[in-house]
Amino acid sequence: MRLVRYRAARAVDTEGAVRSGAVVAVDGVDRVVDLGPATLTDLLAADRDALDRAAARADLADPALSSVRLEAPVRPGKILCLGYNYRGHVPDGVDPTADDPAFPDVFVKTPNTLGGPTDPVVVPAVADDVDYEGEVAVVIGRRAKDVDEAAALAHVAGYTILNDVSDRSWQRRQSQWALGKCFDGFAPLGPWLVTPDEAGDPQDMLVEVVRDGIVTVSQSTATTIFSVARVLSYLSSVMTLEPGDVISTGTPQKLPDAQAAHRPLRPGDAVTVRIERLGELTTTFIGGPA
Amino acid sequence: MRLVRYRAARAVDTEGAVRSGAVVAVDGVDRVVDLGPATLTDLLAADRDALDRAAARADLADPALSSVRLEAPVRPGKILCLGYNYRGHVPDGVDPTADDPAFPDVFVKTPNTLGGPTDPVVVPAVADDVDYEGEVAVVIGRRAKDVDEAAALAHVAGYTILNDVSDRSWQRRQSQWALGKCFDGFAPLGPWLVTPDEAGDPQDMLVEVVRDGIVTVSQSTATTIFSVARVLSYLSSVMTLEPGDVISTGTPQKLPDAQAAHRPLRPGDAVTVRIERLGELTTTFIGGPA
Repeated sequence: MRLVRYRAARAVDTEGAVRSGAVVAVDGVDRVVDLGPATLTDLLAADRDALDRAAARADLADPALSSVRLEAPVRPGKILCLGYNYRGHVPDGVDPTADDPAFPDVFVKTPNTLGGPTDPVVVPAVADDVDYEGEVAVVIGRRAKDVDEAAALAHVAGYTILNDVSDRSWQRRQSQWALGKCFDGFAPLGPWLVTPDEAGDPQDMLVEVVRDGIVTVSQSTATTIFSVARVLSYLSSVMTLEPGDVISTGTPQKLPDAQAAHRPLRPGDAVTVRIERLGELTTTFIGGPA
Repeated sequence: MRLVRYRAARAVDTEGAVRSGAVVAVDGVDRVVDLGPATLTDLLAADRDALDRAAARADLADPALSSVRLEAPVRPGKILCLGYNYRGHVPDGVDPTADDPAFPDVFVKTPNTLGGPTDPVVVPAVADDVDYEGEVAVVIGRRAKDVDEAAALAHVAGYTILNDVSDRSWQRRQSQWALGKCFDGFAPLGPWLVTPDEAGDPQDMLVEVVRDGIVTVSQSTATTIFSVARVLSYLSSVMTLEPGDVISTGTPQKLPDAQAAHRPLRPGDAVTVRIERLGELTTTFIGGPA
């Protein structure tokens, strides 16, 4: 099941107008079945069967997905990100795990970074080395503290896509990456939350990024160092994970040609992150006040 | 003016019971004048004069401060911390600014770290190198984006004390310090918010830490590398600072004897941070589930 937060196109643009909805294809067109104002994590925790029944009633009277304005599927209290979690390519005969770090490298994106799936990202006047990172984002559904790996995935509400937009020059200014990661709007999230039954195995998803029509990233989550279950268990040994919290699972390296051709993102650029069974998140970059 | 968030001692322990209050000495005993349920930043933004008038009506019928349960004075959307912001001692003739970094090193503490001023901190079973950092915490009162240094302090609601509790071993596991900084409860905050008129010059406050009756830290904010105004201006060039956000201004180094005698915090320990004109924040450390 694909679940969104949205505003009806003609609604007054207030916080109160945000609704939850299920996205259902009717005669080949995605439509949005209204599920009321409750958050997606509250709805999923309350009665998943009721959501399935509501989705089954989708018909041509429901608004087309293309006619509504999508918001980020959750408003996370915490956005936790992994700094390095994909293995590189190694020649035959070399142990691909040889360079694995012992522990995940974790950093935080602050709430001001959150963006909806169609919100443009402003390239800040003070940032001159903006880059993209297309990532599988895990949404917590049920509070998690000190959960073991075997139980961890039961705390997941679903999966979505996060573009961990980063300014490399600010990231390198000091030892901690926070400022390069935390410009306003630097975490577009969406377009929807895909429930675990439909998302399938989080360690078997192809993550791709397309820029200017060229695939710049293409790697499966099968090559991650730390699985989603391992990361959730590890994080929950430190902190209580709350419903709506987002854990983004790191980015694969750019393909060699894309690394060579890379130039910082500028106003007018667009980047699409597409992930198997999770959909596509396209972010446009625009200029801001000088 | 000193402002608190509190629960009346006999109130049912629900979120709804948290009140704002002004702390006023009446016949030498601190008492709490009830200011209603609104947050401190909302109250300060709405009508400071009304708060002063309410405080002026304090009398013996108001509950003693010692009889109420204090909460953290704000619930920040973001807690931003500086990693290194005090100059060390240098011999005469040496430029004390010679080793200053070019930019503040900033990291984030997640919302699960927030603790009230009397909440004990659980020493996690998995953390064996827990340390304290006594810091001046700045509370944002008015939204700030791209503010210059001259205008920055007008966005401050007041000042309080944060103990940036840190596990050094988790902090050192990877390049990013987040996990060593983000254990549940690792940011006790309080006891109150002191408004700027009463807090005085933020670059002229003596910061001290007392452990086992021994002063282990004693240094003035006059020796910080980046002033509060400079830090707020810098951060606001990256992110929108919102009312209630906390910016903690870094910790002075321990005194040489205290560095030599340092041992990690264990259940049963207590640490008091006292800061000129801001008061004292005493944190006790307890054991948790194994």
